[in-house]
Amino acid sequence: MSLLPAMPDCENTPNQQGLSLEDVQGKQDTRGISLQRVGVSQVEMPIRLVQKNGQPQTVAATAKMSVDLPAHEKGTHMSRFIIQLAQWSEEKVLSLNIAEFLTEMKARLKAHSAQLDLTFKYFINRQAPVSAMSAPMGYLCQIRGRIEGEQISILMGVTVPCSTLCPCSKAISDFGAHNQRAEIRATLQLDTAHSHPMVWLEDIIAGLEETASCPVFPLLKRADEKWVTERQYTNAKFVEDVIRDATLMLRQTQGVSCFSLEVEALESIHAHNAWVAHAENFDANLL
Amino acid sequence: MSLLPAMPDCENTPNQQGLSLEDVQGKQDTRGISLQRVGVSQVEMPIRLVQKNGQPQTVAATAKMSVDLPAHEKGTHMSRFIIQLAQWSEEKVLSLNIAEFLTEMKARLKAHSAQLDLTFKYFINRQAPVSAMSAPMGYLCQIRGRIEGEQISILMGVTVPCSTLCPCSKAISDFGAHNQRAEIRATLQLDTAHSHPMVWLEDIIAGLEETASCPVFPLLKRADEKWVTERQYTNAKFVEDVIRDATLMLRQTQGVSCFSLEVEALESIHAHNAWVAHAENFDANLL
Amino acid sequence: MSLLPAMPDCENTPNQQGLSLEDVQGKQDTRGISLQRVGVSQVEMPIRLVQKNGQPQTVAATAKMSVDLPAHEKGTHMSRFIIQLAQWSEEKVLSLNIAEFLTEMKARLKAHSAQLDLTFKYFINRQAPVSAMSAPMGYLCQIRGRIEGEQISILMGVTVPCSTLCPCSKAISDFGAHNQRAEIRATLQLDTAHSHPMVWLEDIIAGLEETASCPVFPLLKRADEKWVTERQYTNAKFVEDVIRDATLMLRQTQGVSCFSLEVEALESIHAHNAWVAHAENFDANLL
Amino acid sequence: MSLLPAMPDCENTPNQQGLSLEDVQGKQDTRGISLQRVGVSQVEMPIRLVQKNGQPQTVAATAKMSVDLPAHEKGTHMSRFIIQLAQWSEEKVLSLNIAEFLTEMKARLKAHSAQLDLTFKYFINRQAPVSAMSAPMGYLCQIRGRIEGEQISILMGVTVPCSTLCPCSKAISDFGAHNQRAEIRATLQLDTAHSHPMVWLEDIIAGLEETASCPVFPLLKRADEKWVTERQYTNAKFVEDVIRDATLMLRQTQGVSCFSLEVEALESIHAHNAWVAHAENFDANLL
Repeated sequence: MSLLPAMPDCENTPNQQGLSLEDVQGKQDTRGISLQRVGVSQVEMPIRLVQKNGQPQTVAATAKMSVDLPAHEKGTHMSRFIIQLAQWSEEKVLSLNIAEFLTEMKARLKAHSAQLDLTFKYFINRQAPVSAMSAPMGYLCQIRGRIEGEQISILMGVTVPCSTLCPCSKAISDFGAHNQRAEIRATLQLDTAHSHPMVWLEDIIAGLEETASCPVFPLLKRADEKWVTERQYTNAKFVEDVIRDATLMLRQTQGVSCFSLEVEALESIHAHNAWVAHAENFDANLL
Repeated sequence: MSLLPAMPDCENTPNQQGLSLEDVQGKQDTRGISLQRVGVSQVEMPIRLVQKNGQPQTVAATAKMSVDLPAHEKGTHMSRFIIQLAQWSEEKVLSLNIAEFLTEMKARLKAHSAQLDLTFKYFINRQAPVSAMSAPMGYLCQIRGRIEGEQISILMGVTVPCSTLCPCSKAISDFGAHNQRAEIRATLQLDTAHSHPMVWLEDIIAGLEETASCPVFPLLKRADEKWVTERQYTNAKFVEDVIRDATLMLRQTQGVSCFSLEVEALESIHAHNAWVAHAENFDANLL
Repeated sequence: MSLLPAMPDCENTPNQQGLSLEDVQGKQDTRGISLQRVGVSQVEMPIRLVQKNGQPQTVAATAKMSVDLPAHEKGTHMSRFIIQLAQWSEEKVLSLNIAEFLTEMKARLKAHSAQLDLTFKYFINRQAPVSAMSAPMGYLCQIRGRIEGEQISILMGVTVPCSTLCPCSKAISDFGAHNQRAEIRATLQLDTAHSHPMVWLEDIIAGLEETASCPVFPLLKRADEKWVTERQYTNAKFVEDVIRDATLMLRQTQGVSCFSLEVEALESIHAHNAWVAHAENFDANLL
Repeated sequence: MSLLPAMPDCENTPNQQGLSLEDVQGKQDTRGISLQRVGVSQVEMPIRLVQKNGQPQTVAATAKMSVDLPAHEKGTHMSRFIIQLAQWSEEKVLSLNIAEFLTEMKARLKAHSAQLDLTFKYFINRQAPVSAMSAPMGYLCQIRGRIEGEQISILMGVTVPCSTLCPCSKAISDFGAHNQRAEIRATLQLDTAHSHPMVWLEDIIAGLEETASCPVFPLLKRADEKWVTERQYTNAKFVEDVIRDATLMLRQTQGVSCFSLEVEALESIHAHNAWVAHAENFDANLL
């Protein structure tokens, strides 16, 4: 990305004839309606994130960026979002500095509030339980940062694939038990007011997949497959069990002040899913 | 759908040897966590809805159904959801009686709260503006009903395709102006406390598409295409303009007590979208 | 749908001032390239289909319609596709008469070839194996008809959800065996040259799901769940086994002259899928 | 990714008790059906690709990998696919060496044919036409490599967002013209038999977007927006025009022996799309 030094952020670029072009967005609006979120969506951008091991990982992010719009302004200057995101894409690694990103965004757009949503696949090496062979596995994650005045809130979302084995099927059947791929989806509001260790996607994922009948793995040899099969069978859980154990785990996670959870199992006996949702101290208006 | 009269709703079906099968879901749970929503998702079912003209329309709905689960119960009896939905699919037309559906669901599952979400394409005949030729057009819609104790809330959601023509592009260009397909997405909380006329999807859709630069149509002849092109051009609107006019329209809609709106334009000059969101008196925890 | 009798199919609709509007599509093209398929996609339309029981079922179809375009013509008159589809939506039931649909389409567009693709959910009542309780289940289906000169070809596609239980996992584990939801996807070219009984979606679906470890069902009570669990376990199959048995079944299906098959299992031990594809006498250029 | 040196590729891993685990996949099959493609799908993996500028770009790829399976073998050893892909993910940069990848895959799986499909977003810096400001833009791309015996074929797929402005709307309207976002989708079979310069995604994308009414850009200032609007208007094209010009361009592209093209325009006057497809010397059985 190269931003020409002569015209950083200048909306009012002269046209080819050197004439100034009208700023329609900057005009007055008379309907008296201030808008809560105005911006761009489905913006694709490579973003570097800090991993728990300290190294950066470049993810292919889909971004939504928005600011509030006062009642008297007709429109937002949307190119400024892309300019900022492209600069950060090239120059910076995102992590603790999300507050800096939001503050910059609020200033560039001359707004009172600003919000950034990133959705991306995050790769973590996963080791098989017996053979110890490993391969990367991609987890669907979200980061949402919001600044309102000086107040910053940060949400972290993650989808953890796993498996569930049905306790009812196991209890009533002479042999076997139906099991299936499932997903644990968590949205965590990070506690930005207190001092505590960083909350890492790596730790949240590892903690959540322990609450399932069994984690899933990218690479399994036969000894691993035996281990996984037997672990599933001895650890039968309904989606209700998984979400209760995930609730217990998140209640004890330092730095997470409130959370929303969903577990959805792609039942192997139905074409529809078993689904459960539970939130604690969570305000969905944050979403 | 045929439900054998001998065993309606009976979980404890004897197996083939006449033995009773253990009810694992009915066991005690000791973790002390009551769950907010437990049920089934991605259930596909034909559902008959009442149209504004009084005739039923059968839609191919995707349903999510859930109830709360007390802390001491291990699991929900999920087949009961399907039994009820299949019975209604065969026997009833859904409309004002959604309260009856929810009350029945709460009773069947012995729950305190119950929730039904339906997502479906709803077809409405759309007439071209000049030729008056018409064809069906499918609108993505949602209905959510929730009962909590005796309190019922109803949300109606609709996605209205339309077009926007950019006022900035029109003002600064010597000829032409970029325009594009856009979507207005509205979620309305219906006022169930007061007496007023029914809120119809047909009316909400018609009202919202008037707020765009121009509606879109399934069938246009040349005289229609000329009309649409000129209407777009003379009615230039940012997504910010559309959502403000949609806000004015919904404020005046009888029977709608609060609402959440989004407008997203598939910009013809970018691969990303312009996006705006605005809600009034709306509690996202309802979603 | 109502088509005003005064102007059926007339492209050259006078505008409001009574002037004739230029037919740009009808102009000459000089690049010398005849195009294979020109038309409309993502058209949503209710379509009535004949069921095996003789009754019509209205499905919410997504249609793609196209014709060839000679080298000297600039464009196709796309509104004619919508006019025809809307008329059939209102007036006719689609089945054996797909040849009539294609012939009409070829004539309306003055083309040499014409093609119709419909994708839809098709509902079939499914009965549980022990309790015999039933509910509708939606199957993703496609119909493609193509006419080239006088030659008609018809493809029928169906996605059948089912389950597979892993023979390897069963053999190496002391107890249990991983199983999962899977999909069998078949595309069949119907034999339009010979006389034989109709090929019904109902029969193809029933035949294909027998080739899995077990079918899936919309509604299962406990005795059914026991039956399904034990059937899965005693009928362990890799995706390779399923596709081989599906191949044997389709080879013996009267009226199916060639086919393409895929089986994909949403492994409960991985976040990725096991996948297999096999075709016999099938020309993918038909797709 | 770390692969333990002691057990590379060893299926027959001893279990925890030191016993050998049965190789069920390696058993005999008696149905007499050799399968064309057996493998894994929806595998997510970071892959490094060579860019035209010589630097590597890491993409978040979704992979499908398959081999043929002889009639007498019961199943494929699917973990070997993941082992190879993870090793390449860690150690290699993919480009000209796709033949090496396929040869290795064929050997690891002891197969006659092997196929790799990668789907990913590929980022290219795009410069605005007047301000010259730039930002990354993500293009959906595919690479398919296939080896059959010693014969290697390579397909390259790309989706290029762009815009079309309707010539009919422009001709019949007193002012304005409807335009919209569109997509050009090309699948190219590379000529591996002759010596010629490399075919680069960067060049194919640049060439294809020139065939539209106008390219789309990630970042536009007002002078750019004026340029884009006027370029669209002076360069009115049907989807039929775009595909004909794309055909002319690809016919002259060195290294491309045959191709398949689609153009789909998200019409701003309809909720459905205009669509056109055309292939030259292309065998869809390659897909």
